[in-house]
This record gives sequence, C-alpha cells and structure tokens, in this order.
Amino acid sequence: MSTATVSRALSRPERVTEATRERVSEAVRVTGYTLNQSARSLRLQSARTILVALPDIGNPFFSTILDAIEREAARRGYGVLVANRFARGDTDPLRDYFLSNRADGLLLLDGSIDRAQLEALTRAPTSLPLIVACEAIADAPFHTVRTDNAYAAEQATRHLLRLGHSRIGHIKGPAGNVLTAEREAGFLAALCSAGAEIRAEWVLHGGFSMDDGARAARTMLDLQERPTAIFATNDEAAIGFISEIARSGLICPRDMSVIGFDDLGIAEHFLPPLTTMRQPREALGRLAAEALIDLIEGAPGKRVPRQFVLSSQLIVRGSTAPPRPR
Amino acid sequence: MSTATVSRALSRPERVTEATRERVSEAVRVTGYTLNQSARSLRLQSARTILVALPDIGNPFFSTILDAIEREAARRGYGVLVANRFARGDTDPLRDYFLSNRADGLLLLDGSIDRAQLEALTRAPTSLPLIVACEAIADAPFHTVRTDNAYAAEQATRHLLRLGHSRIGHIKGPAGNVLTAEREAGFLAALCSAGAEIRAEWVLHGGFSMDDGARAARTMLDLQERPTAIFATNDEAAIGFISEIARSGLICPRDMSVIGFDDLGIAEHFLPPLTTMRQPREALGRLAAEALIDLIEGAPGKRVPRQFVLSSQLIVRGSTAPPRPR
Repeated sequence: MSTATVSRALSRPERVTEATRERVSEAVRVTGYTLNQSARSLRLQSARTILVALPDIGNPFFSTILDAIEREAARRGYGVLVANRFARGDTDPLRDYFLSNRADGLLLLDGSIDRAQLEALTRAPTSLPLIVACEAIADAPFHTVRTDNAYAAEQATRHLLRLGHSRIGHIKGPAGNVLTAEREAGFLAALCSAGAEIRAEWVLHGGFSMDDGARAARTMLDLQERPTAIFATNDEAAIGFISEIARSGLICPRDMSVIGFDDLGIAEHFLPPLTTMRQPREALGRLAAEALIDLIEGAPGKRVPRQFVLSSQLIVRGSTAPPRPR
Repeated sequence: MSTATVSRALSRPERVTEATRERVSEAVRVTGYTLNQSARSLRLQSARTILVALPDIGNPFFSTILDAIEREAARRGYGVLVANRFARGDTDPLRDYFLSNRADGLLLLDGSIDRAQLEALTRAPTSLPLIVACEAIADAPFHTVRTDNAYAAEQATRHLLRLGHSRIGHIKGPAGNVLTAEREAGFLAALCSAGAEIRAEWVLHGGFSMDDGARAARTMLDLQERPTAIFATNDEAAIGFISEIARSGLICPRDMSVIGFDDLGIAEHFLPPLTTMRQPREALGRLAAEALIDLIEGAPGKRVPRQFVLSSQLIVRGSTAPPRPR
C-alpha cells in the first residue's frame, strides 16, 4: 500500500474500503504505531486544544463553567488548557500559547481584560479564534456568549421592591470589572424607575469573594441609617455579608433581606437558603465551547462576530422577606 | 552565523556572547520569527505541558488545588491541560494525551481510579511521569503527594469525644473511593480506642456533595435513636446535613454537633461557622506540580517512588459543642 493510502485509512477511514481499513489496523497493531500529535499539529497547524483564560479557577462560579467547557470540548475531541489569573496587565503568556501552536483558539472568561488588550491579541500574527464569555464589552468586534447582567440585576432589585422594601442597598463587585458596572447599572435603573431613594452610602464597595461581602457588612453596620434590603453582586458576597451581620446579632431576612446573583451550589443549602438570580452556567460553558470550536473549524471568512445572550432566572428562597414594620 | 549558534542564542542565551545575543534578537525582530511549539515538541519530545486529571472541576476542593498547580506550572514554564471526570472506567482518553505528545506528565487527583488502571497507564509505550495526589493507594509504586486522611479523621472524631459526645455518627464518602475508606477507618479507630459505642445505623451512606449530606440527614432523622454528633466525610456533606436537619427544626450545634473535613472557603462563613479538619490544599497542589515537573525534567533512572505526606489541622468553630444534658 502507498503512504497516501495508509494515511487516508487512518485519518478518513470512510474513504477507503473495509479490506484496506482492516489491513492498516492490523499493521498498526503489529508495529505498535501511535499518532504523534506534535507531528500532526505541525503538519495540520492544529493542536486540537483550546485555551480557557479564567480570573480564578478556585471560584466555584468559574469552575462549574469550566466543567461544562471541558465536557463539550472532550465530546468534539479537543483538550482544554487553562490559564488562570493571567490578566494582571500582561497577556503575553496567552499569546505564547498561540504563537507556539499549543492551542487553536481562546475562550476568555475574564472581565478584567480590556478591549485594547483583546484587540492586540487578535491581531496578526496571532489572529486567533476568540470567544469572549461572561461579560459584555460594548459593540465588541468579537463573538460573545454572556448573560444579560444589567437586566438580571434590575430583576433582582425589583424583587426587593415588590416585597415592600424602599431602603435598598447594593454590594458592588470589584472595581474596573465589566460585571460590576452592569450589575450596578441594573440596580440603579430599578430604583430610578420605581422612584425609590438612591443613597450613595448604601452602595457599598465589595468584590466577588465572601471576605469582600463581610467587609461590606462591616461598612454597613457603621452607618447611622441602614437599608432594609441588599442586592449583592454575587452569591459569595451575599453569604459573606449575611454571615458577618449575624455576628452583630442581625438575622437575615428578619432584620435585613439579601439577594445574591449566580445560584452557586451552596445557595440552596445556606442558612437561610439564598434568594438569587440563577446564571445558566452549564449552558454558558457548553455554548461558548461549541461556538469556539465551530469558529476554529469553520472558514475564516465566515467569522462575522455573533452575540449570544442567555437569560437569568429569579430563584426565591428564604433570604428575602417583607421589611419589618418600623 | 551558523544555525547552531542561532539555536543556542535562542534556547541557552547564557551560553553565547552578548553581541551574538543582540544580533540574533535583532534578526528575530526584523524577520518576525516565532517559536513553533509543535516543531519544538517534536524535536525535544516535550510539550512543556502537564495533564491534570480531576474527578470534578466544579467542586471547590479540587478547583483550589488546581489553582495552586496552575500557578506552580506557569512559574516553571509549563501549561496545564485538564481532564475532568475521565475515569468512569475508561483511561484511554488520558493515555491519548501522552501517545500524541500533548503532555509530558500526569497529575492524578482522582481517588476513583484503581491501581490496575494506574499500572496500565504507566506501562510502555506510555511510561509517563506520574504523580498521584490526594489519596493513598497502599504500597503504591508511584510518587504520591497526599494528606494523612485516616489520622485526620481520627483527630476529628477525638474532638467530638473530648467535647463529651459518646453517641457519634459518620457520613461516609462515595463507595469505592480510597478517601471514604481511610476516613471511615480513622473514625472507627477513634471510637474503638475510646471505648465508645459503634452503631452500624449511625454510619450513614453519603458522598462528597451537599445533596449527599442532605440525603444522609433524612436517613438519620428517621432513626429511633439518634447520635448527638456527626463526623462528615467533607465540608460539603456537613453543610448539606446541617441545612437539611434545620428544615426539621434541629439546630446545629444545640441539637447536634457536626464536624467537616477540608476547610473550604465557605466553612468560616457558614451559619454556624463550621468546625473542620483543614487540608493544606494550596501546599498540596504546589508540591504535586513541583514533584511532577522535577520528575519530567529529571533522569528516568532517578524515578524512585517517593511519598509526600502533609498533615491536617483541626479548626474549631461554631458547629461543635458539648452535648445537651439529657
């Protein structure tokens, strides 16, 4: 048999006869031939690998998205490389994966990287297939998969308004993050359209961790006049906040209602069970991986930026209730 | 300049003069030369990449270890590929990464893979550098990095005994997992040596998730005679258990003490804050990555199996207290 026939039998078995397939399989068994992916990557310019850039693998919000990404990638025969906390102003390590042909495309889950950095990454000689997931960069010339954060934040705040709260505070996310801005905007929009009071001191500096939520609680506890309900930028901040006010004897939801954002696994098992906006993390990860691999395998000419927007769902549990009569 | 000199200037810059380094750097700039990692991997038989096999990226216990692994690998210039939930009886996908030269070594965090599977993986033609982390396979001919689970479980149970409990139950981990067996053994050893009652119905089937803990709680609630304290196989099971008994009006620790295992981030923010055995996750991840890369870069002859054992620490918080007087 010619080299071309053997190669065809291995890479496109449907193109050869069954007899040829069997002879080649037998030879593979006898000689112990194995595929050298490095050689294959060099020839095909494909590593069958995607790179996922995350702000924090240790955070369960991202790790469950990564879980879904990995499953979808495995289904399509792709490996998953992870780059954690890469941003910090330096995207060179990311670029290196592509310059060295170790990855075929990038799935970006980090809201702290800015548009200029993204555009630099996608410029030649890299010009890599890219999916931006988890945040919206306005009018981005990239494919994005995200949830509508501003709208979901508005829904969360409206839930508190509907319960009868009029003194509502917010724990903000980390400074400079797109999600922080979008969720705060949704919060303010809901208060505005309801004609509710917006008080600067009730908009608390926070972050995405439980410790950040606890810190926001200590700031809030020092206020002369306190809100009766809080919309927290995510579940971790909500949990840290509830836990910290408990140390001062304030019970959620009796003394203060708190709604989170994400619906982490802990939310339904926390005491009290946490009311939150459920993010479709599994769908988000799967869709992002799917879109990226389609992009990698598709014709470069077809790369017209597309925006996928998934919606969130209000999950009402025990951490929100009507305000106590004053 | 000869090809050899250029190659040396790029790969071992300390071996050439500064003038040569500068001339080569300038040529790189002018020509836009980039390193092709596929070609380099093919030549060096090295992918500068390690593969981490996990049972569940979505579980914060593993994701924080992965975080530490990724940081150490990045520091040494290695990328990290993740393989999630691979085991399920099929290690072929793992083997493929090595047969195709996409990874240089394997770091295994999954306690559900058995010794025969491991030995098959490390046999030729794979014969890959391997570190088994997070569990002990008795007398394993592999490098292992782990915590002493049986001893830590004994310590956890002794804490409950010291508080005055004599009716102590256990929520077991998933069946067939090494960790499950070790932690149950430590639990039984502590009860035995204290001469405390061991009652089969107080050893509850559980698992590593919050839902598993909740299920164990429902089993326990149906018992005629209940324990006054529980050692849970991990923090997630402990949290699910505490949350579920609260629905039946049982308050932890007033009505039942619960100690967990791991010290996840949520443990100190849970209500009540969780008493637990802290696992050195960050050290474990870092040490495992370090050992694996040493193994990859070291001489094959020096691969005498080594066992690193890290110790756990009792963290006393609010979920354990003396039993109520009967």
